[in-house]
Amino acid sequence: MTEHIIAFPGGTTRFCFDADLEQLRQLAPPEKSFILTDENVMIHYQRELKPWQVITIPAGEASKSLETVDDVVRQLIALDAGRDALLVGVGGGVVTDIAGFVAGIYKRGIRCGFVPTSILAMVDAAIGGKNGVDIGAFKNMIGLVRQPEFLLYDYRLLQTLPEEEWINGWAEIIKHACIRDEAMFGLLEQHRLEDFQKNGQLLHKLVMKNALLKAGIVAQDELEQGDRKLLNFGHTLAHAIENVYQLPHGFAVAIGMVFAAKLSEQHTGFPATGRLVALLERYGLPVSMDFDKDQALHLMQADKKKANGLIHYILLETLGKAVIQPLSVDTLRQQIAL
Amino acid sequence: MTEHIIAFPGGTTRFCFDADLEQLRQLAPPEKSFILTDENVMIHYQRELKPWQVITIPAGEASKSLETVDDVVRQLIALDAGRDALLVGVGGGVVTDIAGFVAGIYKRGIRCGFVPTSILAMVDAAIGGKNGVDIGAFKNMIGLVRQPEFLLYDYRLLQTLPEEEWINGWAEIIKHACIRDEAMFGLLEQHRLEDFQKNGQLLHKLVMKNALLKAGIVAQDELEQGDRKLLNFGHTLAHAIENVYQLPHGFAVAIGMVFAAKLSEQHTGFPATGRLVALLERYGLPVSMDFDKDQALHLMQADKKKANGLIHYILLETLGKAVIQPLSVDTLRQQIAL
Ligand SMILES: NC(=O)c1ccc[n+]([C@@H]2O[C@H](COP(=O)([O-])OP(=O)(O)OC[C@H]3O[C@@H](n4cnc5c(N)ncnc54)[C@H](O)[C@@H]3O)[C@@H](O)[C@H]2O)c1
Ligand SMILES: NC(=O)c1ccc[n+]([C@@H]2O[C@H](COP(=O)([O-])OP(=O)(O)OC[C@H]3O[C@@H](n4cnc5c(N)ncnc54)[C@H](O)[C@@H]3O)[C@@H](O)[C@H]2O)c1
Ligand SMILES: [Zn+2]
Ligand SMILES: [Zn+2]
Repeated sequence: MTEHIIAFPGGTTRFCFDADLEQLRQLAPPEKSFILTDENVMIHYQRELKPWQVITIPAGEASKSLETVDDVVRQLIALDAGRDALLVGVGGGVVTDIAGFVAGIYKRGIRCGFVPTSILAMVDAAIGGKNGVDIGAFKNMIGLVRQPEFLLYDYRLLQTLPEEEWINGWAEIIKHACIRDEAMFGLLEQHRLEDFQKNGQLLHKLVMKNALLKAGIVAQDELEQGDRKLLNFGHTLAHAIENVYQLPHGFAVAIGMVFAAKLSEQHTGFPATGRLVALLERYGLPVSMDFDKDQALHLMQADKKKANGLIHYILLETLGKAVIQPLSVDTLRQQIAL
Repeated sequence: MTEHIIAFPGGTTRFCFDADLEQLRQLAPPEKSFILTDENVMIHYQRELKPWQVITIPAGEASKSLETVDDVVRQLIALDAGRDALLVGVGGGVVTDIAGFVAGIYKRGIRCGFVPTSILAMVDAAIGGKNGVDIGAFKNMIGLVRQPEFLLYDYRLLQTLPEEEWINGWAEIIKHACIRDEAMFGLLEQHRLEDFQKNGQLLHKLVMKNALLKAGIVAQDELEQGDRKLLNFGHTLAHAIENVYQLPHGFAVAIGMVFAAKLSEQHTGFPATGRLVALLERYGLPVSMDFDKDQALHLMQADKKKANGLIHYILLETLGKAVIQPLSVDTLRQQIAL
């Protein structure tokens, strides 16, 4: 096990990398801990989770609703969970988001920890204390910023993760490489997904690097006033197309990153769109798509990064260096028309 | 207007006493502020609230639900409320609780202020940053601790408050006198409710004294590790009877305070139960009731102030001085049997 303690402005998180689900007993004694998970994870790890009282929600984004919150809270009440209870989310980003939110409001806040089980949760969703619940079609409209006490990484849990979810999560890894870590970009170019799936140490180092990269950015800017915004690279267009076309999030982000790279060519002289396209394809991600351009442009303007007519877009200067640049809607219209 | 700025650990609140609803324009510019209120308050103050976009919820405790939260959030989305929006709760404790909670989670937290319109909200519910939402029959099962930016007190709004709501709120005023302010207890003994209803300056001084008394306790102990618990005087029994018998909260608290005073006689030598009974009656509050003793005892044990078999009870040593004392269930059983 490799431990890292990260102090965020709002709280400190213990990252336990290369750990074993067995070790959860120490972090979360079964007498006063409750586990939240989803049906898919529960099917595979029922035996390992036996020591705990487990609350299970249906798998999938549709569970990120206030009805689920209501349901989980009722189960906590029925299980007589007190103010000193610890809620542990064991699952992908849907589970860690709901667990973080419920722990933040149940009895005005109880302790919380995560065992991320998807690539996306390990390198992104479980890190940084943000959580979100959807309101109808509006994603993450409500939520809190509240750091978990710990994150436990057991990579063996990924053995049951469907291939498409590996690919989905990989988009955020490539994103991290683009905005902050050229060496990691190079490492990814030298390997393929199956290398990481077969070589535990290689995977461990990559996941840890990514988790600490995100944690480092959040520790400097928990409330997203500055650098945390860079994590939105590829996401402005992604948000505008993923719902409409029911794309997996990582697919939408991949398409969004290529679009942002092309915009960057114009505005920062970014020289490596070709390498980005090749890397995304190497990991099974799409690099373009035929979408309704007017609609996407319209949705991008409603995006939260908009301010006084300009859209604050995340561009790349070079591989490993992102910047925020205010662009006019016309600029975007020209690029999107290409 | 009399201003007091109170710094709580989690945030600073500006108390604007003896103010005018007109002044809300300065604190909450209508362009980017949204008002949350209930149907009763809206009926009376529709004209005064005209400058703002107003979200109205049904009056009463039943509105303190996640369905209301969902509904209010959807309206904020429809009104295009952004992250820089300010949500102002104008109403009794139900409205300020929902407004505080929604502001705490909408887009992961927006600004928030209160205009309390009931006695209870003015001296208690709107102060201290706690808010709560009920889950079915379980009161305040979820919530946050988050201070509002401001509280605006316009006592003229109380002109439309029903008499029983004045009496209801008065129980908390008498509670404050009991636990912290013997002089206020004496002042209350010299007056009647109608004195305060007729004399604006007398009311202003009393409300301000009570608001600052509660704020002072919370500022020392925002997370209820110590003295904030004293504000639960009378509430252990109150919580055990108010739902079962559908009592107004203040009525239940009054009965609970008399019970706690009698317990205090035994354990601290408290000498003034008679004066407390007389004061409660003077303000129209009940001092006893024929309730199911076994059931109440059972519910009291489930109360959150229980720890290792003992119930942490708030007792009085003298008028104006409260203490926390762990009592066994047997001790309570004996007193309740009397
Ligand atoms: N809070 C944040 O900062 C943040 C950041 C990024 C994403 N998110 C959120 O995360 C969510 C997406 O996360 P996700 O991709 O992990 O989604 P997810 O939780 O829905 O998991 C994807 C699928 O994989 C399954 N799964 C997960 N782990 C498994 C395992 N070990 N074995 C077998 N099946 C497994 C799940 O049941 C699900 O079907 C979104 O709701 C998104 O909004 C949050
Ligand atoms: N957050 C806290 O720290 C805290 C503390 C104490 C109580 N509370 C909560 O406060 C709530 C009780 O507060 P409340 O007694 O103000 O209840 P309330 O908000 O239901 O108000 C009582 C009644 O008076 C009406 N009303 C309020 N102001 C009026 C006015 N000016 N004119 C005419 N009608 C008016 C309301 O519509 C309602 O019918 C409970 O839900 C309780 O849990 C919270
Ligand atoms: Zn993403
Ligand atoms: Zn009360």
